[in-house]
Amino acid sequence: MMNKKKFIAVIGGRQPSSQEAQLAEGVGRELAKQGVILVCGGLGGVMEAACKGAQSEGGVTIGILPGESHQAANPYVQIPIVTGIGNARNVAVVKSAQAVIAIGGSYGTLSEIGHALQSGIPVIGLNTWSLSRNGQQDNSIILTQNPTEAVNKALNLTTK
Amino acid sequence: MMNKKKFIAVIGGRQPSSQEAQLAEGVGRELAKQGVILVCGGLGGVMEAACKGAQSEGGVTIGILPGESHQAANPYVQIPIVTGIGNARNVAVVKSAQAVIAIGGSYGTLSEIGHALQSGIPVIGLNTWSLSRNGQQDNSIILTQNPTEAVNKALNLTTK
Amino acid sequence: MMNKKKFIAVIGGRQPSSQEAQLAEGVGRELAKQGVILVCGGLGGVMEAACKGAQSEGGVTIGILPGESHQAANPYVQIPIVTGIGNARNVAVVKSAQAVIAIGGSYGTLSEIGHALQSGIPVIGLNTWSLSRNGQQDNSIILTQNPTEAVNKALNLTTK
Amino acid sequence: MMNKKKFIAVIGGRQPSSQEAQLAEGVGRELAKQGVILVCGGLGGVMEAACKGAQSEGGVTIGILPGESHQAANPYVQIPIVTGIGNARNVAVVKSAQAVIAIGGSYGTLSEIGHALQSGIPVIGLNTWSLSRNGQQDNSIILTQNPTEAVNKALNLTTK
Repeated sequence: MMNKKKFIAVIGGRQPSSQEAQLAEGVGRELAKQGVILVCGGLGGVMEAACKGAQSEGGVTIGILPGESHQAANPYVQIPIVTGIGNARNVAVVKSAQAVIAIGGSYGTLSEIGHALQSGIPVIGLNTWSLSRNGQQDNSIILTQNPTEAVNKALNLTTK
Repeated sequence: MMNKKKFIAVIGGRQPSSQEAQLAEGVGRELAKQGVILVCGGLGGVMEAACKGAQSEGGVTIGILPGESHQAANPYVQIPIVTGIGNARNVAVVKSAQAVIAIGGSYGTLSEIGHALQSGIPVIGLNTWSLSRNGQQDNSIILTQNPTEAVNKALNLTTK
Repeated sequence: MMNKKKFIAVIGGRQPSSQEAQLAEGVGRELAKQGVILVCGGLGGVMEAACKGAQSEGGVTIGILPGESHQAANPYVQIPIVTGIGNARNVAVVKSAQAVIAIGGSYGTLSEIGHALQSGIPVIGLNTWSLSRNGQQDNSIILTQNPTEAVNKALNLTTK
Repeated sequence: MMNKKKFIAVIGGRQPSSQEAQLAEGVGRELAKQGVILVCGGLGGVMEAACKGAQSEGGVTIGILPGESHQAANPYVQIPIVTGIGNARNVAVVKSAQAVIAIGGSYGTLSEIGHALQSGIPVIGLNTWSLSRNGQQDNSIILTQNPTEAVNKALNLTTK
């Protein structure tokens, strides 16, 4: 039964560097190998690379789309959710996951990091934003070096 | 691959009559038998009965939840989507489906019927609302008599 | 101070009959005369006619827009709220009001009637939907014959 | 007519330091003096301090609330918008403004900064987040030292 499964979100922009796309594909593969369901925003770039990786290992992929049609989903999204609420769907992407892996540095990704941290959902980072306020580093984003480490950290933080 | 699958939403209130709950369970069973993925609002009543029926036949169930936690999902939801947007998630429930089957007559269901018809998504009815404006009947809701007829009508209208 | 003011929503479609547009303008005028702030979806048709009527009597008009820009607002909206959430903004239109006046019969209006009734917000109707379920009339929409009667009914129901 | 007015959002958390609350009140006063309509999330902390400042100078204050009731609005909100969409309303707060002034460093504020920058809406900062990605500083947030400078920068960036 799927409802015992874990759900982890992969967040990242539509125009990643080739290195970021590789990281995303690796994260998708690793999630699938560990039996985790991948949640994402359903579009291109990091989202597509992660779904592609997951599908290559037989994983399940959910794309929570901003627009009015499932046709905007990348070809590796198996379960398209059509919200029609634009970027407000970023909230649903992170809330539908027990942990979030952020790859790269778009502003949409930054908004999702904010929503996740506000909701107490752990954020694991790969080549992504780092934050400080009033000159003091904020270490809420857990930095990792590669897809395997990122997925393992995420899984460790979703024991509930 | 799931992305060739059809998605049909079952909408209905949290406090159905026992007859409506039976209809919902029958619709869920029939959708699963036909290989259709069931989308719903994820809570109790009609939503739960439909998910229960689908799961009993090995079907896949998606619950698009209004609140902040997947824990509000009924026990037969396999894929909980946590939107955090309250009743505005009604829009996502209907937009994520190629057709909608409405059972019973809550006001939330009425809002979903309105959103579906506004988006050109077919609405099939079982014991549900009927509409008229300025004294003239509106026949947009396709009335059916039993779960099998409802599911067949819905599938006929999702050929695209 | 405005925060003692009453807020009433006028809901209706973008392509009203000329009679419906006249009713909407009359409702807008009457709301302004009574010192009520008008809330609407901010676009054309019934929404524009109501805002025009309100502005002609010096009233305040709020348009809660579905899209990404305030430029879609009709010219009589003084306070554009840009939600970016598409038709899900219908929920915000009705929840921001203490009562709702529905004019005409678009499906978007039907969704708003459903959301309002689900939230316990009174709905007053002018040439709008009437509802029945399982063959029984539902009298939740309070029928009125003209703008003055509609506004007076709405105000009577917002004493809290 | 209000529709020639400028709208500027003040974003910040519910538990500011006393210095941040003072900055927020100063920003509210300055916005009101310059005839700008203040948009915010409608709750306490930075939002309340900014509304208080604006109201003390006769300004107009809009609070775009996350919950289901206008009663959660702080006492200085004149125009409560009740969205019912939770933190997804953060998108509406920034999109309803031509520029955003961020005060302090909550995670909700971070999400709003992300949404604003993603939409091309200028962000002016007072004691707020600073951002870097992959070790490189991102200078999108325009840093200022006091309320007058923040409001002037914001107004300069809203000439359209």
